[in-house]
Amino acid sequence: MTPQPNPQAGAAVKAADRAHVFHSWSAQELIDPLAVAGAEGSHFWDYDGNRYLDFSSGLVYTNIGYQHPKVVEAIQRQAARMTTFAPAFAVEARSEAARLIAERTPGDLDRIFFTNGGADAVEHALRMARLHTGRPKVLSAYRSYHGGTQQAVNVTGDPRRWASDSGNAGVVRFWAPFPYRSRFYAETEEQECARALEHLETTIAFEGPGTIAAIVLETVPGTAGIMVPPRGYLAGVREICDRHGIVLVLDEVMSGFGRTGEWFAADLFGVVPDLMTFAKGVNSGYVPLGGVAVSGRIAETFARRPYPGGLTYSGHPLACAAAVATINVMAEEGVVDHAADLGARVVGPRLRDLAGRHPSVGEVRGVGMFWALELVRNRETREPLVPYNATGEAAAPMAAFTAAAKERGLWPFVHMNRTHVVPPCNITEADLKEGLAALDAALTVADRYAE
Amino acid sequence: MTPQPNPQAGAAVKAADRAHVFHSWSAQELIDPLAVAGAEGSHFWDYDGNRYLDFSSGLVYTNIGYQHPKVVEAIQRQAARMTTFAPAFAVEARSEAARLIAERTPGDLDRIFFTNGGADAVEHALRMARLHTGRPKVLSAYRSYHGGTQQAVNVTGDPRRWASDSGNAGVVRFWAPFPYRSRFYAETEEQECARALEHLETTIAFEGPGTIAAIVLETVPGTAGIMVPPRGYLAGVREICDRHGIVLVLDEVMSGFGRTGEWFAADLFGVVPDLMTFAKGVNSGYVPLGGVAVSGRIAETFARRPYPGGLTYSGHPLACAAAVATINVMAEEGVVDHAADLGARVVGPRLRDLAGRHPSVGEVRGVGMFWALELVRNRETREPLVPYNATGEAAAPMAAFTAAAKERGLWPFVHMNRTHVVPPCNITEADLKEGLAALDAALTVADRYAE
Ligand SMILES: Cc1ncc(COP(=O)(O)O)c(C=O)c1O
Ligand SMILES: Cc1ncc(COP(=O)(O)O)c(C=O)c1O
Repeated sequence: MTPQPNPQAGAAVKAADRAHVFHSWSAQELIDPLAVAGAEGSHFWDYDGNRYLDFSSGLVYTNIGYQHPKVVEAIQRQAARMTTFAPAFAVEARSEAARLIAERTPGDLDRIFFTNGGADAVEHALRMARLHTGRPKVLSAYRSYHGGTQQAVNVTGDPRRWASDSGNAGVVRFWAPFPYRSRFYAETEEQECARALEHLETTIAFEGPGTIAAIVLETVPGTAGIMVPPRGYLAGVREICDRHGIVLVLDEVMSGFGRTGEWFAADLFGVVPDLMTFAKGVNSGYVPLGGVAVSGRIAETFARRPYPGGLTYSGHPLACAAAVATINVMAEEGVVDHAADLGARVVGPRLRDLAGRHPSVGEVRGVGMFWALELVRNRETREPLVPYNATGEAAAPMAAFTAAAKERGLWPFVHMNRTHVVPPCNITEADLKEGLAALDAALTVADRYAE
Repeated sequence: MTPQPNPQAGAAVKAADRAHVFHSWSAQELIDPLAVAGAEGSHFWDYDGNRYLDFSSGLVYTNIGYQHPKVVEAIQRQAARMTTFAPAFAVEARSEAARLIAERTPGDLDRIFFTNGGADAVEHALRMARLHTGRPKVLSAYRSYHGGTQQAVNVTGDPRRWASDSGNAGVVRFWAPFPYRSRFYAETEEQECARALEHLETTIAFEGPGTIAAIVLETVPGTAGIMVPPRGYLAGVREICDRHGIVLVLDEVMSGFGRTGEWFAADLFGVVPDLMTFAKGVNSGYVPLGGVAVSGRIAETFARRPYPGGLTYSGHPLACAAAVATINVMAEEGVVDHAADLGARVVGPRLRDLAGRHPSVGEVRGVGMFWALELVRNRETREPLVPYNATGEAAAPMAAFTAAAKERGLWPFVHMNRTHVVPPCNITEADLKEGLAALDAALTVADRYAE
């Protein structure tokens, strides 16, 4: 589809936005939001006729791309039938979405508590864990993101927590494995894995195992840098949790529903958590939806005692109908295998090739359609291309890289000193290769800041 | 529309629900959710051909009833055009929804931060207040509900908080005016108002005004019992907030968008808060949406310093398009005035008439399409028909009343010892009168438990 430029309409959209929309995570007067006119598949376009290949999947959620006709049609059909209904009732779209999700979640995670997004999924999972165990504390990892509400941001291990952290949310932080920037002076991945488990075990011993309700982890940390955990780590965490009666919460809000080339990242490791949070890919974000998949053991806790939590739009029919259609599309069109195949055959090899040629690329890591390039000033020292949490002038090298990508029609995902390659899981091979070529060109700009 | 019975389909929906849907606020094995087949206007029906007049508006959110054709069409059109787009961009539906909401919110509440529902709206409003003032504490009222996430449930003043309240969320509770069950030994509404303000003022003095970021209040408390505050109370709270530099947060998640016969309940009192939360009626819950309307003064705090909060679906295009259509429908069809008119001309007089004839009715109160009947064992002592927070056998009288209403085709809103009359704001006069007649009949069952 060729976008029809209409700068006047774009200016009106932009003007109303600047007058009335208060944006997430932003200084309201320092931002300049692009007005977007349309989107389809892996592309979107603005009102000036610029077209972009979306290597960010929005915020890593449009796993089947924009405007998939079957999901659009399912939303239209459900809207005609039953847009909404209160949560205390049984409703076809709600039942069917829960069934399809439960069919795919690992192990006995067979009961689905629906929320509106990722943050409230995490909020409710932690409440379930605390009430199930009767214990107060939650362990979470530095280098993580779990959402923007108070409890979710308090388990978050990045600077977005700081402004809201009064230190009394009952959260204890630990370090998860990250071989490239090891906190454990490890020289091999095996060593990193063993030491990370020992660190977790020691933290638990000194915090008091009987005080810890849950360990919450992104199965593969997303926004924090796509650190695929070393083989054995998650199984080790599972074993530690079992030994101490701690609930294992895996946050698959970003890593779930095909992103890693499996339905859930947990499947990469054969690990079954007690609670699993999801959102984003469950319906490609076409209608706000998230949730918690609950194991039999924890469901049992709330079998005859009320679960003290809820929300007006739990299991919203329109959102659930979009989930049903999305899951069916993913199954019929082999989207999960497609992501695994392109990841292994195209993205991995090509990114490693880029790393060989661009001095600014410190490390390449990932799986499926979930990849990160760690950009550095110096490959020996691994000094990041911009400092941790840099803004303004200090972040200029990343801004220059971003601008160079956009000039080439590529919309990149950029966070701190990293760019992530996280296109829709059903991107065509041709589009993917075109995007990787644009990335190649943009990296020459990043190279200027590297030694 | 005559519903077509299809008990087999209903059984399948119910079976999948029981196997896979984890429900809000419930002991999962003690509930028996009705399978709902369809809904239109003020009615819904099950798979057995039973049709109900919905006096609950879902959870008091379908302010324009089910399946309004113009809003359904707007959702279908937006789905075809742009179902979703990330929050950092300017998008037509998002800009237009923000503009239409800002046009209606009181005073200078002109910037709209969109969330997915009511709880996260409250979470973000409280964060804004804390960062704006640099103060830690929040004052909230007993007899209130503000949502199910951790911070929102911690400002909630009903028993749903208990299981999640570790006492360290920085919340101090006070009593708001409630003449029928005065905490202030007041004999008149004027006295109740004056003493409630004095109580609030004293609480602030002893907590330390400089420690208090915000006072959060439902403009008209909803689930807690629809206590329309005495004239002068909210103006008094506004004045106290101004004097102490405290942010006034009015929660209009339930009372907003026509429910009280005004666009916002704040308009009943001519009071302008610093932050106002909304959800539900903003788009009649057709797509999950909530938000915070932000005053100029608070927006200024985040003009050049980032607001540290956000969410993936902030300003979701499909949800915003439903809001645009809903607001336009409400304006074109005069829904707000209709609610005011029917409330004053039909609901008020008829409920007062019921109160005269039914010994179980202790008090009638409300405005617009927002009414409560307080059911009592004894009108002299005002002993509630069931004890505070009763369940099981202790709640039997309310269960008997509820069953009697449903037998008569009326789906009532019931909470503790109250039934609320909260139908869609655009209910027809004929349906409304039919529902009130069924309520009349059901109250004879409640009467059996009253002296
Ligand atoms: C792992 C993870 N958890 C939770 C969230 C929060 O989701 P939401 O933005 O829908 O609240 C995110 C969002 O990016 C996420 O990546
Ligand atoms: C006044 C008020 N605030 C907040 C909420 C929470 O809204 P939600 O259920 O959408 O999270 C409600 C829900 O009933 C409410 O009535």
